[in-house]
This record gives sequence, structure tokens and C-alpha cells, in this order.
Amino acid sequence: MRIGMIGLGRMGMNMARRLLQHDIEVVAFNRTADKVDQLKVEGALGAYSYAELKEQLEPPRTVWSMLPAGAPTQAAIAELAELLDEGDTIIEGGNSYYKEDIKNAEILKAKGINYLDAGVSGGIWGLQIGYCTMVGGPREEFDRLDPIFKALAPERGYMYCGPAGSGHFIKMVHNGIEYGMMQAYAEGFALIEDSQFGAGIDFAELSDLWNQGSVIRSWLLELAGDAFSKSERLDDLEGYVDDSGEGRWTVMQAIETSTPAPVLTSALMERFASRRPNDFRYRVLAALRREFGGHAVKKSEE
Amino acid sequence: MRIGMIGLGRMGMNMARRLLQHDIEVVAFNRTADKVDQLKVEGALGAYSYAELKEQLEPPRTVWSMLPAGAPTQAAIAELAELLDEGDTIIEGGNSYYKEDIKNAEILKAKGINYLDAGVSGGIWGLQIGYCTMVGGPREEFDRLDPIFKALAPERGYMYCGPAGSGHFIKMVHNGIEYGMMQAYAEGFALIEDSQFGAGIDFAELSDLWNQGSVIRSWLLELAGDAFSKSERLDDLEGYVDDSGEGRWTVMQAIETSTPAPVLTSALMERFASRRPNDFRYRVLAALRREFGGHAVKKSEE
Amino acid sequence: MRIGMIGLGRMGMNMARRLLQHDIEVVAFNRTADKVDQLKVEGALGAYSYAELKEQLEPPRTVWSMLPAGAPTQAAIAELAELLDEGDTIIEGGNSYYKEDIKNAEILKAKGINYLDAGVSGGIWGLQIGYCTMVGGPREEFDRLDPIFKALAPERGYMYCGPAGSGHFIKMVHNGIEYGMMQAYAEGFALIEDSQFGAGIDFAELSDLWNQGSVIRSWLLELAGDAFSKSERLDDLEGYVDDSGEGRWTVMQAIETSTPAPVLTSALMERFASRRPNDFRYRVLAALRREFGGHAVKKSEE
Amino acid sequence: MRIGMIGLGRMGMNMARRLLQHDIEVVAFNRTADKVDQLKVEGALGAYSYAELKEQLEPPRTVWSMLPAGAPTQAAIAELAELLDEGDTIIEGGNSYYKEDIKNAEILKAKGINYLDAGVSGGIWGLQIGYCTMVGGPREEFDRLDPIFKALAPERGYMYCGPAGSGHFIKMVHNGIEYGMMQAYAEGFALIEDSQFGAGIDFAELSDLWNQGSVIRSWLLELAGDAFSKSERLDDLEGYVDDSGEGRWTVMQAIETSTPAPVLTSALMERFASRRPNDFRYRVLAALRREFGGHAVKKSEE
Repeated sequence: MRIGMIGLGRMGMNMARRLLQHDIEVVAFNRTADKVDQLKVEGALGAYSYAELKEQLEPPRTVWSMLPAGAPTQAAIAELAELLDEGDTIIEGGNSYYKEDIKNAEILKAKGINYLDAGVSGGIWGLQIGYCTMVGGPREEFDRLDPIFKALAPERGYMYCGPAGSGHFIKMVHNGIEYGMMQAYAEGFALIEDSQFGAGIDFAELSDLWNQGSVIRSWLLELAGDAFSKSERLDDLEGYVDDSGEGRWTVMQAIETSTPAPVLTSALMERFASRRPNDFRYRVLAALRREFGGHAVKKSEE
Repeated sequence: MRIGMIGLGRMGMNMARRLLQHDIEVVAFNRTADKVDQLKVEGALGAYSYAELKEQLEPPRTVWSMLPAGAPTQAAIAELAELLDEGDTIIEGGNSYYKEDIKNAEILKAKGINYLDAGVSGGIWGLQIGYCTMVGGPREEFDRLDPIFKALAPERGYMYCGPAGSGHFIKMVHNGIEYGMMQAYAEGFALIEDSQFGAGIDFAELSDLWNQGSVIRSWLLELAGDAFSKSERLDDLEGYVDDSGEGRWTVMQAIETSTPAPVLTSALMERFASRRPNDFRYRVLAALRREFGGHAVKKSEE
Repeated sequence: MRIGMIGLGRMGMNMARRLLQHDIEVVAFNRTADKVDQLKVEGALGAYSYAELKEQLEPPRTVWSMLPAGAPTQAAIAELAELLDEGDTIIEGGNSYYKEDIKNAEILKAKGINYLDAGVSGGIWGLQIGYCTMVGGPREEFDRLDPIFKALAPERGYMYCGPAGSGHFIKMVHNGIEYGMMQAYAEGFALIEDSQFGAGIDFAELSDLWNQGSVIRSWLLELAGDAFSKSERLDDLEGYVDDSGEGRWTVMQAIETSTPAPVLTSALMERFASRRPNDFRYRVLAALRREFGGHAVKKSEE
Repeated sequence: MRIGMIGLGRMGMNMARRLLQHDIEVVAFNRTADKVDQLKVEGALGAYSYAELKEQLEPPRTVWSMLPAGAPTQAAIAELAELLDEGDTIIEGGNSYYKEDIKNAEILKAKGINYLDAGVSGGIWGLQIGYCTMVGGPREEFDRLDPIFKALAPERGYMYCGPAGSGHFIKMVHNGIEYGMMQAYAEGFALIEDSQFGAGIDFAELSDLWNQGSVIRSWLLELAGDAFSKSERLDDLEGYVDDSGEGRWTVMQAIETSTPAPVLTSALMERFASRRPNDFRYRVLAALRREFGGHAVKKSEE
């Protein structure tokens, strides 16, 4: 089976490699040519334009898009919609918001082009162990492209989730859960660090311990062990925590369906808070305490 | 009516003054003599030792303790327990934990000394408008000392709350609610500040507006207006928010009775968080993101 | 000054009355005629169609819309946009989402019609004490219509908040804060109820007490006192708490500007939770406990 | 090596079995004799009193207590303190609060008896895969008893955590993290269930999928899969979630060291909330909405 792969970033490049390793033919395209050149060395076919990409695929063609969510993905899909023919299929494997998928699928359906949305988890480890893949869209397309998903994912590691948008929806919730789990571990380690026993604990050793038969063993905890092995108290890092969208969408989903999700929400808010030392909300609190109680406040040094 | 007042700090001094203004005779005692001297000028009797204090009170004597909670209060009560006679009464008006009150009351009861715990709210404004006072202990002592409470509090501003500990318990919950309200306002102001409309809003004017007929009008909002009048964006303050114990006890109470109190708890945690920029928990999150996703991290500059 | 008033519901009817009481001429319109008839008896002019409404207003005309947010409001504005002339003004006083206001203002501007968005707080008490009013849109229109706002609001109780959308935005945050405050009080009362002192506390009396000089005195606390006066433990109510949109939008705003708002968010989630006894998320927790620990679970009776 | 084992409940029985399987001699004692009889059949020595237990152990004796935390454990330790000789060792392997351990260790030290506190994780699965074990107390005793811990735990699955109390402290935080993780999964599954895609998702299949290479793979997620396999939507369970203490202690620890732990705390509060449908706090909210807005309330049917 042959597939076009658009977007050779951190994820796309390794996914293409994994497909190649599992005997899927890959026609690779990227905004900058050097990534394409590199992948050609590793056995891919290369395309330096969408037109070249199309030429090297037999109908019904399959193109996997692995671009940043939002404008880049939407632009690529718009362009492919013009270029591709009836019966072809686009798989959007980036981190698109599932509501965008639903719109995309409708627009493409009018042109007879199939649309699958694939939520892909596994990060930089996916090349080695496979990418956990959640797929939405027409069932028959999912079935037809089974060899692709089988190559990409670990055994039992891909699933048909339902109609358009469902793949990214399930992946979105996955990331929401991920935020909650990460925050749970982070709070736990901080509680130990702050305790009378903290100084005596080697967190890399503890992470490894907890992964031997404890209730909280997990892959994230393995990664925590790796991180603590590199830097005992992570003093080389700043406690500034970014987010990439899915956590926000998860909370917006909670609001939309009136589903209580206090922990996932709190985890998101914590990330926001990490970026705001000396925040206005805290200054308001300090000012109020001074006003009613005459409590001492810290004056800004500026 | 005459009362002994121990502890002429920010609260105790003004409470003594308010009692004097309402024709209660006050025998004042303080660890440092100058405060006693000052209050004598304002009409109080002065005592420079607990023995002197006792001498100037007729049995049954009443002594109001207004010392910092914890060790200072407990030491004073122990000393008074030795000194006072059967039938005398101690009113603990500081911020004692209610479980301490229950113990104190038992110990003193064995000696025939009455014990009232009085939770007092009103801060630096109490002198002028009266102190809202919540009282626990023997009902008959509360009734006997009605003139004291009436002098101290605004009209309808004092209440018998039940057996020993109940006064401070109700005050403790009051403070827990206060944390939640303060945080609600702080978050609201921050949301406005961060919005596209923030630059155009005068927060002193807005606080005043909201106090004219809106659902969220309150005394705390009046104080917010005062604070914003002094400093438009509170840039002269650091967002470092202390706490004085009652908020913690409130959450411990929630745990004890399995009562869900997510907002009061969150408000407490926010105060903790305000004191910890670049916190370990955030560094753990940043490290985990790097490990699984290869996400960029900020390196510490040190 | 004369104004058209569309939508004589719980809010609109009383606002019309308050305007009449302050010598503003009101041309009243409602979907059902009986409300119009009633207001005519109280001194208003009546209109039974938008055309009749327009006829009774002199250019530049002012129409206040007080309809349910969403489709009804948007439909009315669309119809008015067709009917009104250049230089006329629409005031949207319902609970529209501020982003709708921004769109409305743009569309109407193209037709030369002015648009003000007015967030109105005060609930069923506004008739008596005035409605706290937050206004966005063109400054000169706000100034021109000053007599209207002055009639509607208590003294100092209205404010120009900035460009289109800002009035409803500030009102939205107001409601977000309201959720947080309500939840803080609710948790506090529950903590008392659950405590060893709970049985002895009269919550109406306590609410009244706290309103005499305590730090947490507020109008909401006055209302709590009213509620407890009617029913001591609110046993006649179900703990099912609805929400009307602004609290959700407030949290969506927090997500949009990455502003930490844990308390406002928690208060919203609590409302969701109130509607979901025996929720799926709880069943998942119970099932997990059984799986790893053999902990007992409660079997559903169905 | 030979050890006395007190308390043959769900955990203690299986731990004794695992020790026997790894060639540790076990002298078993239980409040009820039948459990002892049973274990004798499986190869243990039996004791029907503490005195018999002592007789069958050679000095320095080692007794592992696996009783319910609180009174039962404290009573057993008091009795053993009287009975045992200088140089003997007690291992408290139940879920004692770490502050109790610190007190126990001091009392026993005065008698020359060693005390180790061992936090044990693994639940009903420990027999098969080993118990993750966290140990506090004198380092040399930990080293001396290495064969015991090695038998009990999986490879690399036990760790010396520091002085008295540290073992149970680390286990306590482990459980706190566990609450957070469980809640994160529970909220995620609920979000999916409530969505437009929910009806089409097989949660057992999804749990299994996520365990193949996704970021959130974990042992808890394997258990979730098991639970969903038994009952697709867990309709046979009630959403009533108990807790066994460690989660509470974790939050109390956060309060003690002023460590922000919003997610662990929220997870605890959710458990409390699960037990309180139609809660007073919700009725207060409903009542307040009625008071200020005239919003409809649901009347209780009783």
C-alpha cells in the first residue's frame, strides 16, 4: 500500500519512518525540501509540490496530513480538496479540534472526497513502540486503510471511534486525562519534597519503585523517573508549563455538555497559573487583606 | 460593668477603646507597658501584672484575652487559671482553634472558672462600626455579660452559638467563606484585566458601580474600591498572599466531616500557590512534557 | 425622553415600570398582547407590532430589547435592523454573549444604526432599588441616553464600559463572581450544618448576624437570611442548581485568555454536579476501587 | 528467615502466602482462629495468642502487623510492646498515619524494640505480582530484614524511605496521587459518555486501546478495562465512592506544608460529594437563585 505524507515535523517524520519500516510506501512532502531529501535517503518517494504528490499516488489516493492544527492544516486541506479526485481520501492526523473535522468532512463529502480524522498519541516514543491511533470517519475507509493503521500502531493499538470528528474527540479527552494525571504526580512529588522526609528521597529511585507493582504505575511515571535521573530536583528547568490546546477543548467540552470535570479543569488552570508569577489576582487578594485587616503586604521592589 | 482586657494589639486596643466609649470600665494589661499607659490616658484603668489586674476586678471577675492564637493565648489562659477564683470568667477573643477552646473549657471547668470563646470579626473597622461577635460557652455567662457584647458589637451584631468552641467555630467558617469571596472577586478582576476591554476599565469606578444595586455588592467590594483608588492596578504590591489559620482549619473541618468544600479549598490553595513562583510541581510538569513530547522547556537562568 | 421597550418578561416589565416612575415615556411591545395591555393601564403607550412601535417613536428612535438571549434576541435585532432608520439606536439589555454584541454592532453600523449592549443586574429587586447597569457601545450614544440610564439605575449605578460588547462582558464577569460567592456561602453553611454545633444554629439568625459588621456581609447574605427565614433547612427544595449561561461564558473567557480562575470554575462545575446524582464518573471510581482493592461497592437497586 | 504475621485479612493473608511461596517461615496469628487454621494447611506455623506467637520466634524476633489502621493497630502494638524483648522488631504494615508511626517508634525505642513502618501497595493483585513496599525506620533493621522485603515485593519493588514514618508517608502520598489519577480517568470517560460519540464507544475496547502506546497507559487503565468488560456502563453499581484515609491525610499534609495540591484535593472532595445527593450546599444555591432572580426551583417531593 502507498500513502502520501504531508508535514515532516517531529511527529510526521517518525510516522513516515515507521510506515516505511512496515513496508508501506510513502510519498513524502514537506514545506521545506531538506526533510523530503532526508526521507528519500531512508527509502521514501519524494514530492516537492502537491501536484507531484498526486502524480505518484494511484487512485483511490490516500494523503495523510500531519501539520500543525489550525491555519496550516486548514490551508492544506483546502488545497488538497481542489487537487484530489472523487474517491480519494484525506486523513487528518494532526491535533485538529473535532468540530473542525466535522466541517471538513462535510465540505469534502460534497466533492466525493473521503475524510478520516486520526488522533495519534505516543509522542517521540511512537517510532519505536507504535502510535496509539483513534480514527473517525466512514467505517469502510477505515477498513480499507487497515494496513496503514496496523503499520503505524502497536498491536491492538488503533480503533474506529465513530463518525467524523470522533477520532480527534477521543484523542482530545485522552490529552485532558493526561493533564490530570501529570498534575496528580506533580503534586505528589511536591508534597514529598516539602515534607520532613523530602531531602532523603531520590525521586528517580522512587519513580522506579512505584512502577514495580504499585497502584499508580504508568508510563508517565516511567518518564518521571527518566526526568529525575537527568536532574535530581529539576533545578535546570523553569516551572513554566505550556499547553497545546486539547486540554482547553476538553474543558470547553465539559462546559458544553454540563459534565463535571473539576480535576481536568484544575489541571488546566494550574498550567495557566504557572506562567503568571506575581499575578494580578494575587495582588487583589493581598490588597483586600490589607484593607480589612491591616495585614502586612509585600511591596513591589520596582 | 468592668472587664479586664489582656493584649492591646491591633484588635485588642481598639476593642478596649470601643468598650470605654460605651461606658464599660476596662482594666488594661499588655506585655509592654507603653500600650497600657496610652490606654490609661484614654480612660482605662491600668495593670502591669496579672496580679494587679485581678486586684482591680470584683468577683465574679471577667477577663477578655485578645492575644495571638496558639502559644501566647494558651500561656495566658494557663496563668489566669492559676490566678483567678471560682466563679470568675475568661473570654478568649483571639483566633483560637475551636478544639483548643473545648479543651480549655474543660480544664477551667474543673477549677470552677467559666470559659467563653468569642470569634470577633470586623478588622480595623470594628472600632467605628462595631465588631461582629460569635460566642460559645455557658449560656448563663453569655447572658450575664450581655452589656459587654452589646457595647462591642453593632446592633444585632452578637450571637450565642452554643457550647464551648462554637463561637470560634462559627468565626472560623466565616473566615473560610471570606477566602472564597475574596478569591471570586480577584479572579473576576483578573478576567477583566486580561480581556480586550481591560485597559479601558477603572476598577475603583467598577467596584463602586457594582456596589449600587448589583447582585455581588458587599463590604469586601467596597474595600476593593478603596484599594483600587489608592493604586489603579496595585502595581505597588507583590502578589504574595498570607493566611492566618482559619482558612486551613476550615478545610480540615471539611475533611473531618466529609463535607465537599471545593471553592473554599481552592481559595486556600491559591494562597499557598501565590507564595511559590517557579514551583517544583510546575517543574515536574514541564519535565514530563519534555520527556513524552519533546516539547520545549524554559531553562532556568541560574 | 421616550423609548421603545421590547419584551415584557420578569425583567423587562419591571424595568418599563421603573422608567415610567421616573418620567420616561415608554412604548411597550410584547409577543403576547396582555402584557402590553397591562402596562398601558400603568401609563405606557402600547404597540402590537414593530411597525406600531416605530410609528410612536420620533427619530432618532431608541429601542430597548429585553428578550431571552440567543435566538429570540437575534431575531428581534434582525427585524429591527430592517425596520429602523439611520441614526436610530438599539439597546440590547438581555443577557447576550458579548461576542454576539460585537457582531451585532458591526452589522448595524453598516446600516447607520447605533447599538448599545447593556448588562443589567438586580433581579426581581431592581424595580425598587434600581438596576445596576453596565453599558458598551458608542460613547456619544451612551451620553445622549443618560436620562434613560439615570432613571433605570440607582445613583452612581450605571457605567460606560467601553466599545461594543463591553457592557455584557462586564456583566458576564459579574455573574461569574456571583457564582463563586454563592458557592462560598453554600459551602460555609454546609460545614456548619455538618458540624457538632450545626443543630443549635439558626441560619436565618446567623445570616443576619454576619451582616452586622462582619467581613463577609453582603446583599447575597441578606437574601440567604430571607431564604432561611422561609424554610429553616431548605428541606422543601431540591438541590438542583440551574445556570443561565454567563457562568459558562466566564470560564470560556478564562480559557481564552489563559487566566487562572479556579474558584469561578469550581462553582460552575458544582452546579453541573448538582444535577447528576449517581453519576457515571462516580461509578467509574467505585468500579476502580473494587478492581484494585477488592473494596466493597454499593450495588444499584435497579 | 522466620516472621510472625498478625492480621490475616484481605491483605495480610495473601502477604503471608507470598512469603511462604518465597521460603520465608511464617507464624500466623489472627483474631479469629479459622484463618490461622487455613494458613497452617498452606504451610504456615500457627499461633492462637501473642504468647504462642512469641514462643515460636527466635530472638531477635520480627512481627509484621497487618491490622486495620487506628485502634486495632495501636492496641496490637501496645500489647506487643509489653510482650516482646529488647532487640525485637515490629513492622507496622497496615495503613497507619505516619504521625502515629513516629510516636510508636519513640515509645518502642525506649524499650529497645525496633519499629519499621511499611507502606504496602498492590491490593488484591499483590500475591501474584508482588507488593510495592515503602519502608521507614532504622536503616540497619531494613537491611537485616531484606529477605522479607525481597520475598514480598517484585524485583526493585521495595525501598528504604528514611526515618520512622517515612514509609507510610510515601505510601500516603502514593494513595493521594491514586485518587487524582482515578478521578482524571473517571472525568474523561464521563466526557465521552456525555458526548455525541458516547453511544458508539465500547469503553472496554477504548481502555485497552489507550493501553497500547498512548501517553495515559497505566495499570489503573487496565483495571478500568476489566471493569468495563464486566459491565459496559457500570449500571449495576452505585456512584457512591468511599475513601480509606490516606487521601484525607494527603490533603492535611498539603495544608501543613502549604503545598498547593488542587487536583489531589479536588479528587477527595469529589468522593465526599458522591455520597451526598440533594446536598444542603446545593439547596442553599437553589434558594439564593430563587431569592435574587425569581428563578424556578425544584420542590422536594417529600
